[in-house]
Amino acid sequence: MNRRIGVIGAGLMGLTHVRLLSGAVSGAEVVAVSDALPEAAERAAAEAGIETVHGDAFDLIHDERVEAVVIASPAATHEAFAVACIEARKPVLCEKPLAETRDAARRVLDAELAAGSRLVHVGFMRRFDPGYADMKAKLDAGLVGRPLLVHCAHRNPVVPPSFGSEMIVTDTVVHEMDAVRWLLGQEIVRATVLTPRPTSHAADGVHDPQFVIFETEDGALADVEAFVNARYAYDIRCEVVGELGTIALPPATPVLVRRDGREAAELPDRFQERFGAAYVGELQAWVAGTATGASAWDGYAAAAVSEATVEALRSGRAMDVALDPRPDFYAAGPRTAG
Amino acid sequence: MNRRIGVIGAGLMGLTHVRLLSGAVSGAEVVAVSDALPEAAERAAAEAGIETVHGDAFDLIHDERVEAVVIASPAATHEAFAVACIEARKPVLCEKPLAETRDAARRVLDAELAAGSRLVHVGFMRRFDPGYADMKAKLDAGLVGRPLLVHCAHRNPVVPPSFGSEMIVTDTVVHEMDAVRWLLGQEIVRATVLTPRPTSHAADGVHDPQFVIFETEDGALADVEAFVNARYAYDIRCEVVGELGTIALPPATPVLVRRDGREAAELPDRFQERFGAAYVGELQAWVAGTATGASAWDGYAAAAVSEATVEALRSGRAMDVALDPRPDFYAAGPRTAG
Amino acid sequence: MNRRIGVIGAGLMGLTHVRLLSGAVSGAEVVAVSDALPEAAERAAAEAGIETVHGDAFDLIHDERVEAVVIASPAATHEAFAVACIEARKPVLCEKPLAETRDAARRVLDAELAAGSRLVHVGFMRRFDPGYADMKAKLDAGLVGRPLLVHCAHRNPVVPPSFGSEMIVTDTVVHEMDAVRWLLGQEIVRATVLTPRPTSHAADGVHDPQFVIFETEDGALADVEAFVNARYAYDIRCEVVGELGTIALPPATPVLVRRDGREAAELPDRFQERFGAAYVGELQAWVAGTATGASAWDGYAAAAVSEATVEALRSGRAMDVALDPRPDFYAAGPRTAG
Amino acid sequence: MNRRIGVIGAGLMGLTHVRLLSGAVSGAEVVAVSDALPEAAERAAAEAGIETVHGDAFDLIHDERVEAVVIASPAATHEAFAVACIEARKPVLCEKPLAETRDAARRVLDAELAAGSRLVHVGFMRRFDPGYADMKAKLDAGLVGRPLLVHCAHRNPVVPPSFGSEMIVTDTVVHEMDAVRWLLGQEIVRATVLTPRPTSHAADGVHDPQFVIFETEDGALADVEAFVNARYAYDIRCEVVGELGTIALPPATPVLVRRDGREAAELPDRFQERFGAAYVGELQAWVAGTATGASAWDGYAAAAVSEATVEALRSGRAMDVALDPRPDFYAAGPRTAG
Repeated sequence: MNRRIGVIGAGLMGLTHVRLLSGAVSGAEVVAVSDALPEAAERAAAEAGIETVHGDAFDLIHDERVEAVVIASPAATHEAFAVACIEARKPVLCEKPLAETRDAARRVLDAELAAGSRLVHVGFMRRFDPGYADMKAKLDAGLVGRPLLVHCAHRNPVVPPSFGSEMIVTDTVVHEMDAVRWLLGQEIVRATVLTPRPTSHAADGVHDPQFVIFETEDGALADVEAFVNARYAYDIRCEVVGELGTIALPPATPVLVRRDGREAAELPDRFQERFGAAYVGELQAWVAGTATGASAWDGYAAAAVSEATVEALRSGRAMDVALDPRPDFYAAGPRTAG
Repeated sequence: MNRRIGVIGAGLMGLTHVRLLSGAVSGAEVVAVSDALPEAAERAAAEAGIETVHGDAFDLIHDERVEAVVIASPAATHEAFAVACIEARKPVLCEKPLAETRDAARRVLDAELAAGSRLVHVGFMRRFDPGYADMKAKLDAGLVGRPLLVHCAHRNPVVPPSFGSEMIVTDTVVHEMDAVRWLLGQEIVRATVLTPRPTSHAADGVHDPQFVIFETEDGALADVEAFVNARYAYDIRCEVVGELGTIALPPATPVLVRRDGREAAELPDRFQERFGAAYVGELQAWVAGTATGASAWDGYAAAAVSEATVEALRSGRAMDVALDPRPDFYAAGPRTAG
Repeated sequence: MNRRIGVIGAGLMGLTHVRLLSGAVSGAEVVAVSDALPEAAERAAAEAGIETVHGDAFDLIHDERVEAVVIASPAATHEAFAVACIEARKPVLCEKPLAETRDAARRVLDAELAAGSRLVHVGFMRRFDPGYADMKAKLDAGLVGRPLLVHCAHRNPVVPPSFGSEMIVTDTVVHEMDAVRWLLGQEIVRATVLTPRPTSHAADGVHDPQFVIFETEDGALADVEAFVNARYAYDIRCEVVGELGTIALPPATPVLVRRDGREAAELPDRFQERFGAAYVGELQAWVAGTATGASAWDGYAAAAVSEATVEALRSGRAMDVALDPRPDFYAAGPRTAG
Repeated sequence: MNRRIGVIGAGLMGLTHVRLLSGAVSGAEVVAVSDALPEAAERAAAEAGIETVHGDAFDLIHDERVEAVVIASPAATHEAFAVACIEARKPVLCEKPLAETRDAARRVLDAELAAGSRLVHVGFMRRFDPGYADMKAKLDAGLVGRPLLVHCAHRNPVVPPSFGSEMIVTDTVVHEMDAVRWLLGQEIVRATVLTPRPTSHAADGVHDPQFVIFETEDGALADVEAFVNARYAYDIRCEVVGELGTIALPPATPVLVRRDGREAAELPDRFQERFGAAYVGELQAWVAGTATGASAWDGYAAAAVSEATVEALRSGRAMDVALDPRPDFYAAGPRTAG
């Protein structure tokens, strides 16, 4: 018996979820879709053979046939939709960020606490990437000892001119906020943003690249190069340095070509390629209910770190992360693997 | 609506298919299973929640609820089951080999020709491995020019003592027979087997490793090191050398660890790990009907090459492959990618 | 006709130079050696067949047979010996640092300016490492566009307990100070030192690892992880990120071993292994007079950056580098490759 | 005191030796040069400041100032010059091959036996390549157990049209003949040559690539892809497969570049680049007398294998190597590392 899913949002991410749920995940069926642009929803429904198109996302959430919901609409809508899902007692996979602000994320958290059951999964898909998952397993097994440093790079080939300096924090570095918290099993307590001279390929006034430094509760440091007009590829790097050694993601490449005086590995161009297996793994685990991935707490913590990091970017100074104490309800917190 | 699958054989391979069809493939449902050992079938049914257990595989094939069949029983049974599926007009994914002999495979081919529709898919899963698939795409695009040589290694860490010299050809090298035919889009016309001194880890009298050399219809050479007691890992290598360069599979590793004076990549231990994504991709494509993979012709050709290679092993001489002309029905032959 | 060299210092570095000059460099002959410990000098002389042992380094400098001098004695002695060599108009290869303080280095610089000829070469041997040299050539050719960021790691397996926090700056990071200045062809103008929680393998009170951030005159950023009790290997990493791509040092390994479930590359244990070819290349170029390597200006600039970085470590704040204007005499400055 | 060297042959290889002996090797001085083309010898002498040019190589050999001789003239002259050096009791480094035929090589061997002292070093420089040397050390240490298979590739980007099928054996594969003998410490007893369809970049009638298979006295197999118009690079591959694992040469590259959607390592274009360090190491060891490298026996054995392999190419059949018993004088035979 397939689980009946409703998908809110039929843009790039929503469509990706519809396609994977329909063609690459076992035990799932997309039965409803909605989008603020009715024609986008209609197009997705036609492509994937989805029965119902809702004009209003709340109607989708309350549709009796819908057993679980994917939220892939713009960030500003996440809070309201997530809270509605919680109140309807329906499991929800909410694309990152959980909400646009720390306070909004707190409200989702409170809703879940009030509901008394873990319904929210935040779409930090990297936890399901084979490389990150293996890194996490080896760190937890103590293979390289206590982690001291994490070196990350997050490079996109290009972004639209509207993608400003703060979006580099909130849309790009947010993935590393979750990855660092999860890999180390520690909260991030302080953020600093350094802004080297920008690339000439950045839009005027945009700080690209940025070099972000996080400090964790136990005093480990994580540095993140975020470079969204890096031109050459979509390239994600992560190396954790422990007391006994390091663990790093290698470039993921299916073949090596020797030609024209070079041995070369192709790099992916888009996150959909790079993290294709991660998205499938995340959806499969969510549908099967075998793994929780990032919780509402993780979504809230990422929102808090994000807010502090934007402040650090604006002020040029190190900023503390304002984080409420973690409710016992989320005891395992970031220490639980996906 | 899910496609209703029956699985014949509940041993290692059958169970793998049951699990993937039930937990990792979209649009499929295993509704029946059978095995010569009733308790094996019962166990699989219980694990995966399969409704029906058939004592007789032919009953499974003729079960009205079963829309398509996976054959994962011992090789000796493949011919009869495959022919029965064809006669019942049900799509069938038959694990390699299609049949135990060239003549038996020819009979399956003839049954399909008589049925007049492509119902048989042979389980050469490597065609769905991301590395092989990318290699095939790049070869077809002419990236390294006309292929001249293929270097392969197929290493298992260990096999049971019953795994004899001829099984190294029929069970191990058979994968390379298909891979070479498919990558180059050419038939193999001649085989030679060289037998270096055996490893001390081989059973008495078993030639392990073997070094097999294939010649294709256009004069390209493929060499295959088959080494089934290689101890260190399950390791599959393939490099195609063309007139302009080479394309090779890299070691597939999720992370790199630096520890104890070394940078190391873990290698897989079993084919299930190494080709996990390939099995899922093959089953997904078969269920969706979006790709045909290896055809009955490919299964027949592999059987013919296999027979010649065993003869070459026995005789110590080069042996020609006896291959009937390809029926127009299979016009695209090995040139069709999976 | 061989160039007749005198070597001051017969400790680890001095002995390395004696051996390479005697056994791996063309056109050189070590004719004199001195050390504060006479027996060390005697031992080196006996091993390498050196005719003369001087009790006093100044005697060596003024020895008529000595045409050129290598200074490999403790840092505190560099200034006086370097100035004496300059005054004697003898070419001198001075191990890093050129002098213990910025002011002392300035006095060497002034001596060379007064002499009016380039006599001083500072032993930043990385400029002669094949990897660094290729990286420099590709950067200068514009292969990856204007450099924006440099990521470095400098890891030693272990240091003696006496190797304190400030030595990590002055003895370890000093190599990256020169490498960054040279690779980018820019002066470093500001330094910050972050101190994550120390490894449990560090001596009490020692900040290890340290994370150092340099800003260059054009606004590029360089980050350096300096980790001197990293246990697993001697490991030097460097990646320059430009507007169009990146250039990085790969792990330098002569062979790849597949064994025990892993493909592994051995990493070196000591800087002598890692930079063996660099030392030979540096000495060969210096003896042949075909390349100047790091100049007195480079030595002075490194001393100035070093002083600011130690201040940054002590204060926990970003510190500006106090650098006099570069005399025209050193016009090519750090932009000249080795 | 420098060793005084005479170099016979001022073509590509002779000039390479002159330059390395003059500019990269410790303790050597080229005092005389000769060439069949007097102007070539004059040019080399002028470039390297060599005092004496001999019109006749025998005069060079007998020149009292010359203490040791490098033979880098055409292969047809090697026997006579090597014998003359032996008779003059002067150490000689003879470029490969030791002689043009097995019988000629035998005569050099006999001359050395008659002289009763090891004077001949054959220029199989790969024994001094860091990768090969490390592979040899690890094999000898038993790291991967008893060797069973060796996979080699020897690829040149291009050769002149005059470089015919047999030269691919005698000039190209000859390096692998020595490498395999040396790495395994075994004689090669049988050779087979397979000729796949040639690349369209080969001259008419030339078999390129060739696939050569050697069998050793203990039953190990070595396969060599020799491809001299491979276009893309000068690429040397070697992997030894033992009972416990494998050891392979990695691509030797100083930096990794990420640009234009690829991570790429440059490959060398010419053997001089690829084996630059090996040539220096070989000359240095020879000048210092600290290592013998390939002996006259090794040169004789390579000539015998070469002759059998040419026969195998001509006949299309496996050919036995005709090898006299090894004199006790060369007891350590190929088992001695360089």
